[in-house]
Order: sequence, then C-alpha cells, then structure tokens
Amino acid sequence: MMKAVITGTGTYIPTITKKNEQFNNEHFLLPDGSSINDSNPIIIEKFKDITGIKARRYAEQTYNTSDLGFFAAQKAIETANIDPETIDYIIFAHNFGDVKHQTVQSDLLPSLASRVKHLLQIQNPNCIAYDILFGCPGWVQGVIQAQAFIKAGIAKRALVIGAETLSRVIDKYDRDSMIYGDGAGACIVEKKEHGSAGILSHASQTFAKDEAYHLFYGSSYNPTDDPSIRYIKMFGRKIYEFALTRVPQAMKSALDESNVPITDLKKIFIHQANEKMDEAIVKRFYRLYKMAVPENIMPMSIYKLGNSSVATVPTLLDLVLRGQIDDQEVQPGDVIMLASVGAGMNINAIVYQY
Amino acid sequence: MMKAVITGTGTYIPTITKKNEQFNNEHFLLPDGSSINDSNPIIIEKFKDITGIKARRYAEQTYNTSDLGFFAAQKAIETANIDPETIDYIIFAHNFGDVKHQTVQSDLLPSLASRVKHLLQIQNPNCIAYDILFGCPGWVQGVIQAQAFIKAGIAKRALVIGAETLSRVIDKYDRDSMIYGDGAGACIVEKKEHGSAGILSHASQTFAKDEAYHLFYGSSYNPTDDPSIRYIKMFGRKIYEFALTRVPQAMKSALDESNVPITDLKKIFIHQANEKMDEAIVKRFYRLYKMAVPENIMPMSIYKLGNSSVATVPTLLDLVLRGQIDDQEVQPGDVIMLASVGAGMNINAIVYQY
Repeated sequence: MMKAVITGTGTYIPTITKKNEQFNNEHFLLPDGSSINDSNPIIIEKFKDITGIKARRYAEQTYNTSDLGFFAAQKAIETANIDPETIDYIIFAHNFGDVKHQTVQSDLLPSLASRVKHLLQIQNPNCIAYDILFGCPGWVQGVIQAQAFIKAGIAKRALVIGAETLSRVIDKYDRDSMIYGDGAGACIVEKKEHGSAGILSHASQTFAKDEAYHLFYGSSYNPTDDPSIRYIKMFGRKIYEFALTRVPQAMKSALDESNVPITDLKKIFIHQANEKMDEAIVKRFYRLYKMAVPENIMPMSIYKLGNSSVATVPTLLDLVLRGQIDDQEVQPGDVIMLASVGAGMNINAIVYQY
Repeated sequence: MMKAVITGTGTYIPTITKKNEQFNNEHFLLPDGSSINDSNPIIIEKFKDITGIKARRYAEQTYNTSDLGFFAAQKAIETANIDPETIDYIIFAHNFGDVKHQTVQSDLLPSLASRVKHLLQIQNPNCIAYDILFGCPGWVQGVIQAQAFIKAGIAKRALVIGAETLSRVIDKYDRDSMIYGDGAGACIVEKKEHGSAGILSHASQTFAKDEAYHLFYGSSYNPTDDPSIRYIKMFGRKIYEFALTRVPQAMKSALDESNVPITDLKKIFIHQANEKMDEAIVKRFYRLYKMAVPENIMPMSIYKLGNSSVATVPTLLDLVLRGQIDDQEVQPGDVIMLASVGAGMNINAIVYQY
C-alpha cells in the first residue's frame, strides 16, 4: 500500500547558548506591571523545576527564521540524498515570519518557503512553496499536508520545514520569556509504493471557541513600554489544563486509528513545551490504556534547547535518529508517535513506522 | 466521479472609498528619495491609464484582516446554506496577518483562521483552522488545497478565505501605494459524488530563483523615515514581464489538463492586479490557441476596488454570481477559469465547471 515516508531529517541548532543564570539581571514583572516578590534566583529556580529548561539557543543576529529553515532543509535534503530539483512542495511552518534582530515587524513578503527555495537555488517552477501558520504544531501539520498531497496525487516528494526565532518576539519583563528559544528542523516526505515504513495515521484538531487566545500577541508587562509593540504572551495555567484534557485523547485517537497496540509504541516525540506538562500528558495518555508510562518512552531536549515552537519535534526526531540523545534510539520497524500542541489552540499527532 | 464543488461564495467590500483624486496632496518620491517631475494630477492620470484603477476600498479603523475574512465567511456559509459545525477545514489566505490601524506589527498569534473559527463560534474541534501564505494567489491555492484534502479523504467540506488590509502596509511616498486596497472573499468547497460541476483541473507554480524578491518588504522612499519600518514594495516592470511570460502558459496547462476546448471557456476571473497587465495576459493566453480574445470574457472590478491581493478573485467571482457586474454572468454548465499571480512569485489557475 502506498505510504508517505520520511526519508531524511535535518536540524539547525543556533550557536548562541543562553543559560538560566543569564536572566539574573532581568526585571521580571507580573501582568499588571507590579514586581514579583521572589528574588530572581528563586524565580529562575521555580521556572527550571516546572519547565525543565536550563538553557536555550538564540540565533545569531544576522540570521532570520528563513535562514535557520534553510540550514535545516539543506541537511534534510543531504540525508535523504535527493536532488532538490525533484521536490514538489516546500512547506514552511512558522508563526512570526522573519523578524530581524532589534526590529518588531514580521517580514512575510515573500513567504519564507519562497525564501528557502531561493536560497536552495531551485529552478523547477513546479516545486510549489508556501507557508503554513498553525501554532507550535505547524511542522507536524505540514507533514500531514504533505501526506494529503501525496494521497491526492499532486506530489511525490515534499520538504517540510519548521523554524522560529522566538528570541525576537519575547517580552523581557515577562518570566515566560525564559521558555522560548530559536531553532529549525526539516524533513523530506516521499511517496513509496511498497514497504511497511511510513505514516500509519494522524489526528488533528483546532479548539478556538474558548481557547483561541490562550496564546496571543500582547503588550509588555512593563507599563512604561510602548503598548502598541506586542510580544508572545500566554495564559500558562489555562494552556496546561487544556493540554492535559485534550492532548492525550487526540494521541489515543491517532494510535487507535493506526491499529497498532499501545505496547508496540516505542517512542513519543512530543512538542518540547514544558517538561512537567509533557510528562503529565504522556502519563494521562497511558492511563487511557490503563498502563504505566514505559521507561525511556519520551526523548527530551527541552532542558538544553528550550521551546523553539514548530522546531522542537523535527529537531528532537533528528537528534535521536542521529544518536545525539543519550539512551534514545529508533530502530527499523519501530512505531513512534509525533505529537504537538500550541497556539490556535491546535493539537495534532502522527503515528509513524520506521 | 467525485468532485470538489464551490457551493457558496461571499465577499466583504470595505465601506471607505478612496478615490484617485484623494491622493492629490501626497508627496510621491522615486525609490532613491528624489522627487517625481510630474505634477500629482499627471502622476495619477498615468497611474489610472495603466492600472485602470479609479478608486479602492479601505477597511474601517476598528476592523482587521481577520474581521474582513469573518464577514466574507459568514456570507459564504449563508449562501452554501450549511451548518458551520460541519466544516472540516478553515483555510485563511493572507500575507500580512492582522495589522491594526496605525501600527506596524503583523499579529499572527493565533492564526487568522483560528480567529475566524472563534468569531463563527464553531465548537467542533475537528474543524481544523490554518493560514496559508502564498502571495496574491493564496486564496486560489487554498481552494487547490481544499480539493487535495477532499481527494485524500481527510475533508468533505472546507471554508476558504482570502482577506487583506493592504492600506495598513503601504508607503504613502510610493505612487504604487495607489494600487492597493482592502477586501475579503470566501467560499465553501464541498465533496460531491455526482454531477458535472466542480474543479476540473489546476496548475500551480513558484518561481523563486531569480523572482523571489520581485515583491518584497522594504523601507519608505522618504529617506527621513525610520528605515527599519517596512512596506509592501515591488519591481513593477519585472513583475509585468514575468507575468506576461509565465501566466498564459500556466493557464494553458490547466485548461489542457481539463480537456475542455478553449472555445468552451466562458469566463476568466483573473487576479485584479493591473488592468493593462491582465488584458495582456489574457491576450497572450488566447494567442497560444491562435485566437483573438472573446468579447466579455474577463469580468473586472479593479477600476472601483483596486488590488486587494488574495481577495480579488473570490470577490470578483461572488460579484458576478450575484449579478453585481454589468453584462457578466455565469450559467449552470459554464466552464470558467480562476487565475492568479503574485508574491513568491507564485502563479496558479483552476478550471471549474458551474
């Protein structure tokens, strides 16, 4: 049976490391502009305990989101060992466009996918380049769209990129700013007529009636800042509750559709949003099958890379495939899950056999 | 045979009319910041002769792109006479996000599709909402994606929206600013198992090797303005030559794939970019079939609505279907073409039977 197969992955991990202790001199404020009672070392320690984040990466000043995506795309093309001219679709997931260092505008003209196609110097006009905005789950959704184009008979090979420079859209007065990092991941998805490898099933949802603005663009917590300049903001508690209620069920619906028994699931690559939240989601997911969480099921990179939005899942997958995460590997035949949750609020999951 | 059928259209035409003579007091400059030798009435007259534009619409200050898209979506849902809760996908095409009046930031968080889903108060989480960035051809591409999801078996009914507030991203020192307007159009695309109506074929291309930056985000022509604030900019001559070289061929490839004889093509709904360019494209298209352009083949709205990017094609289609354009109509059984060209540089065309 025809399948959509990931034949190559690539990632770009920005070179600038920002450690937690480098936030010691920030002046964190509450949403109403008032000061936080705790000292910075205590704020940072609490932050680390909840999120698991010790450090995150920031892009060099001269690079924008599209550059990061281009670097990851180059590696995915190299790993897949394909001629870039044979790519039918370039799908670029992001949420803020190119935001140049120390500017506030999102540059979306042309699309970031067009910029990557330009940087790859692809001549073939039948390689269609577009951007998708779908919150943090955008890269996983891009893979789902690539599969749809393959099934619909309008593509055989797609490049799916997720990249973001969240360091350019954070409010430094907001302690949530410590969550975010920059990064890029990419993969090649191809149509294969034979073999067991490929996407087995997927699930995708948007909750917008009450949840649309759980993540939003808002003014700085510093009341003396220009209120027309906005930053990534979130209602963390609401997101946490939403994710725990909704994500395990979406993961289950994808797994059940695949007909793979839960005991055969080897790895879960989950959006690196917050370590405690990710652990709680996976615990609830297994509870739906009346099981304890198997050891080592969930590779993590958040402790050193932070939350780089659309980039976390493809980056984590690439790191594990290349043996870059201790005690984590994927073998041929292994069934894995990719899962994400984020702005929209959107949720998705893919069950994939290697 | 299964088809993707447009079962409803809707448009929102903003209420503020800006006529050409209202630009008489602007101070237009050349790209290098120098003055233009002609007087404003002459600049405006030349502009009108080339583009055909006499007026354009601007959104009211309190509305953003997502609001315009919501208004158009409501009408499309009403025309299609469907329950919004049965929509599987909301696809929102735009290129700048929500840019609030007198601000410079693009607000993309959450996606505009999520905002519309929120405004429509759709509860169903399986209605998946995402944005596509694909230049001016974004709405046509959204329809192509909806068809792919239908063919792939992951959707039966999609809402495809194109909306833009270009009045918020124009450089008033640039005479090209007179081209742009605001607007929104939408349609419902549905899977139908029987009947001859529906999408017959499509073509889609991205030219990014030499053409990626024909349309771009650039600084004001006024050298005293903050150069970090950017606006929609274009190399008009390059775009004109590109469009004349590439668009007729893409239109032909879509028509040939449909197996509909050129003589059966009843209407061409082309992106309202520039009247002279549109006429030249259609002339070259017919020349590929060694034919003269049939009378009345190309409905136009640019003279009164300007170029509203992704919104022009769905708006024009809706106006003609509702008998709002003199001497233009579409009858059941008629084969029409939707065609667009814009930033990316992207081109697409759909052959559709009513």
